[in-house]
Amino acid sequence: MSLRSEIAEQPAVIRRLLEAGWPLARSLSRPLAAAEHLTIAARGSSDNAAVYGKYLFESLAGVVTALAAPSLVTRYGTPPSFARGAVIGISQSGAAPDVAAVLAEARLSRAPTIAITNNVRSLLARSAHDVFPLGAGPERSIAATKTYTATCVALALLAANSAEARGRSALSLAGLVDSVIEAEAAEREADRLARRIGRARMIVVLGRGYEYATALEAALKVKELAGVWAEPYSSADFAHGPISLLEPGIPVLLFAARGAAQREARAMSRTLRKRGARIYAVTNDAGTAELADDAVLLGAPLSEALTPISFAVVAQLFALSLATRRGRDVEHPRGLSKVTRTR
Amino acid sequence: MSLRSEIAEQPAVIRRLLEAGWPLARSLSRPLAAAEHLTIAARGSSDNAAVYGKYLFESLAGVVTALAAPSLVTRYGTPPSFARGAVIGISQSGAAPDVAAVLAEARLSRAPTIAITNNVRSLLARSAHDVFPLGAGPERSIAATKTYTATCVALALLAANSAEARGRSALSLAGLVDSVIEAEAAEREADRLARRIGRARMIVVLGRGYEYATALEAALKVKELAGVWAEPYSSADFAHGPISLLEPGIPVLLFAARGAAQREARAMSRTLRKRGARIYAVTNDAGTAELADDAVLLGAPLSEALTPISFAVVAQLFALSLATRRGRDVEHPRGLSKVTRTR
Repeated sequence: MSLRSEIAEQPAVIRRLLEAGWPLARSLSRPLAAAEHLTIAARGSSDNAAVYGKYLFESLAGVVTALAAPSLVTRYGTPPSFARGAVIGISQSGAAPDVAAVLAEARLSRAPTIAITNNVRSLLARSAHDVFPLGAGPERSIAATKTYTATCVALALLAANSAEARGRSALSLAGLVDSVIEAEAAEREADRLARRIGRARMIVVLGRGYEYATALEAALKVKELAGVWAEPYSSADFAHGPISLLEPGIPVLLFAARGAAQREARAMSRTLRKRGARIYAVTNDAGTAELADDAVLLGAPLSEALTPISFAVVAQLFALSLATRRGRDVEHPRGLSKVTRTR
Repeated sequence: MSLRSEIAEQPAVIRRLLEAGWPLARSLSRPLAAAEHLTIAARGSSDNAAVYGKYLFESLAGVVTALAAPSLVTRYGTPPSFARGAVIGISQSGAAPDVAAVLAEARLSRAPTIAITNNVRSLLARSAHDVFPLGAGPERSIAATKTYTATCVALALLAANSAEARGRSALSLAGLVDSVIEAEAAEREADRLARRIGRARMIVVLGRGYEYATALEAALKVKELAGVWAEPYSSADFAHGPISLLEPGIPVLLFAARGAAQREARAMSRTLRKRGARIYAVTNDAGTAELADDAVLLGAPLSEALTPISFAVVAQLFALSLATRRGRDVEHPRGLSKVTRTR
C-alpha cells in the first residue's frame, strides 16, 4: 500500500530536506533578495503549496507575491513583465508545460527563476536558472502527499532565508520534524473523524490565513481519494455568501492553528454550531477543539506559520480513511493520472 | 422585483461609467504608472472582479498583480511591503473592514491607493488616496449585479489607461455597451439553460483565462440566489484532479470566449462529452456552442478581454432563473446580508 507508506515517509523526507536544504536555500535566496516582487507558478496540489508560499513570502520576507496566471503566457501570449521580479515554479513531476512556460518567459526577461521539483532532470528543472530538488524519493501513488509537504518545507526554507537576506527576522523551523511525527501518528484520530463524517455527499473545508492553503489541499485530497465533493473556503470568504447554503447534513472540516487566527476560528465554530452544523477540527488550539463535535488535537510546539505542514499530514490521513471506508482504490483513483499536462 | 431591474440597469450604468470614467481613469492611472507591482484587495463578488482585474493589469499594463491576503494585515500584523507598489481596494458598499485595512496599511507606506466603491462616503473611500466611484445608483438586492459589472468596467478603464501610461497599446472598449444590451436581452436563453439544468443538486462551472473570473462569479451567484452548490474551476485546474468526480448527474456550465482560449474550451467540451457530462455553454464561439448540449450564443463583436463583462450578465440571468424555478426568494436570500464585515 504505497500511499500509506508515502505518508509515513514524511518525517524522514522533511528531516533530510531541513538538513540539505538550509545551505541550498541560503544560496538560492541571494538572487531573490533584489527582486521587487515574486510570482509563483503551479497547478493542482503544487498550487495549494503556492498559496502557502505566498503567505510565507509576504509575511516573512515582506515581498508582494502573486500567483501566476499561466494562460497569460501559454494562451494569450501577454505575460506581465517579470524583469524586476523573481519567479518560482513548482511541479513535483517537473512535467507541467504551463508552469515551465512561465519560468521560460521569466528567464527570457532575465528574472531569477527557481524550480521546486522532485525530478531534477525534468522540463521544469531545465527551464529554470536554479533548482530546489525535493529529494523525496519516487512518489508512486497518484495523490501527492510527501511531495506536497516537501514543497511546503522548501518554500519555508526559501522564505526564511529571503527574510534574513532582506534584514528581517527569520522563521525558526525548530520542532517541525517532531510535529510531523506527531501528525503522522494521529491515524486513529483522523479515522475517527472520517467515520463520523460517514456517508456525507459533500464536505465544506475551512481555514483562514496560513491554514487557507491546508483547506485547499485537504479538499483536493478528499476529492481525489474519496470521491467526495469537498469545497474549500477561507472562513472570511465563506461568511461572504456560501455560509447561507450550509445545511445540517453537510459537515464542516475546520483547520485552525493556535495564535493570530484562533479567535476567528472559535467565533466561526460558534456561528456554525448555532446553524446546526457538525464541525470537525484539525487544530492545536484546545479551545477550538472543545467547540467542535470532534477534533484531532495536536500538541507539539510549532510556529504558527509552520502548522500547515503538520496539519496537511492529518488531512492526508483523513482523506485516506474516508476513501478506504468508501471502498475506493486509493492507489489508482478513477480518471486521474500522476502527471497532468495542461498548457 | 429589484434584482431583475438592477440587472436591466447595467447597459445604462456602464454607458455612464464609460463616459465619466475615461478622464478619471486617466488621472488615477498616473500614480499607478510608476508602481513596481500591484495588489488588489477585495472579498466576495468584488474578489471575483479582482481576479478579472489581475488578468487585465498583467496582460494590458504588464504589471505583476497580486490578490491581497487581508489576514496578513488584520490577523497576523505582518503585511508585505507595499511601498514600491500600488494597491486597489474594492467594495461596493465600502464597508469591508479588512479591505480598508489593507488600503490603510499601503497608505502608511506611501504607496498610491485607489478605492473602487459605490459609496464615496464609505470607510473604504476614506482609507484611500483616490476614489473611483461606480455611480451605479443604490443596489437594493443583496446579490451584487450592477456593481459587479461596474467594478469590472472600472478595472478595465484603469488597466487600459495604465497600459497607455506605460507606453503599451490600450484596449478598445468599443462595443461594450452593445454587448451588455445583447446579454441582458438573452433572458429567454438563460432561462432555457436553467430549465435544462433542472433539479441538479450541484453544478460545476468552468472558465479559463479571462473567463475564470466569470466562472467564479457565476458560481457565487448560483449559490447565493438558487441555493445550489456550484463549484468553479479554471478548466486547467479542473483537469488536475476534480474532473474525476464528475458524474453524469452533475451538469457543467462553461464560459468560453472566441479567441485565444477557444481551442481549449472546445477540447474540454469533447472530453466532458466522452465522459457523459451535460454541457451548457455561455459563449460567443459558435464551435463551442455546437459542442454543448445547449448554449447562450452571443454575437455582438467585442474584445476577448471584455467578454467577462457581458458573460457575467448572462450568468446573473441564469442564476435568477434557476432561483425562481426553485421558488427561492431572490431579494432576500436566506442567511445573507448586503454588507458582510469580515476582518
